[in-house]
Amino acid sequence: MSCSLARTLGVIGDRWTPLVLRDIALGISRFDAIQRNLGVSRRVLTERLTALVDDEVVDRVTYQEHPPRYDYRLTQKGSELIVALLGLQAWGDRWMSDETGPPVLWRHLLCGQVSEPRVVCSCCGEPLRVGEAVPYLGPGASAGPGTTEVPAAIARLQALVGSGGEAQPPQT
Amino acid sequence: MSCSLARTLGVIGDRWTPLVLRDIALGISRFDAIQRNLGVSRRVLTERLTALVDDEVVDRVTYQEHPPRYDYRLTQKGSELIVALLGLQAWGDRWMSDETGPPVLWRHLLCGQVSEPRVVCSCCGEPLRVGEAVPYLGPGASAGPGTTEVPAAIARLQALVGSGGEAQPPQT
Repeated sequence: MSCSLARTLGVIGDRWTPLVLRDIALGISRFDAIQRNLGVSRRVLTERLTALVDDEVVDRVTYQEHPPRYDYRLTQKGSELIVALLGLQAWGDRWMSDETGPPVLWRHLLCGQVSEPRVVCSCCGEPLRVGEAVPYLGPGASAGPGTTEVPAAIARLQALVGSGGEAQPPQT
Repeated sequence: MSCSLARTLGVIGDRWTPLVLRDIALGISRFDAIQRNLGVSRRVLTERLTALVDDEVVDRVTYQEHPPRYDYRLTQKGSELIVALLGLQAWGDRWMSDETGPPVLWRHLLCGQVSEPRVVCSCCGEPLRVGEAVPYLGPGASAGPGTTEVPAAIARLQALVGSGGEAQPPQT
């Protein structure tokens, strides 16, 4: 499906995978430790880890030869996925916590403060809000299931904000 | 499970739900239009929309009485979930696009630029990176399935960066 979100959800795959990634990011990186922590079946965990290795989100590193035992480490791609998932976690902290508050806080080592992950515009740094960004069809847009109504919807949104013209590539 | 990410994934629920939310965010907000766009069965779509209404992520608004027809609109909670999902979409754009590039770009109306959603620290505004933030158990932490190994893992990470002491509540 021509949608980066759908492709991303294909990698995340199911509810176990983000929790497996969280464990690896926390340094719970060996098969047995992840299995013990999550209480997931060995078969399911093997499947999920294999998929993550295939997607180049984690590397499998041998730490013992006989019998073979593996450590799982985030790749650069995986590390960036963790950061994206922190944005989701922050939403959960804000909207899904019970009265006791968030289960986990993060201290940012660069500034020393306990911070909330926040999704902002890469250009101006302001927090993104629905209604303050207008979508454009990008170079990878294509027709197909899940996207047939999208071009018309995007045109309506653009008309709504009076924002015509060509999209520029992101300035990175 | 005492994890905001797990709770969030409970709301997102499956692969259809984020795509339903994307459609609603794009203004494809009527049942028939979403169903036509995604090619999802009416039964599955009804289930997913009902769950989103129950979770207060979308509101169901009657736009026709006979027969009853509904429009679905994001709540504030839902709008903020969309923004969090934009962080995942940006990861997909970066790591999962084929050679043609991202299917959808976003122009930020506040600054006028086509931007990439980016996850940053709420305090200093710097992009978050794995290894530059250290977790703390928050007030809502509790033992239980999926978290038994977490306190020890967090203590190891804190020792690794020499960052002891109490966590401060986020400054909002």
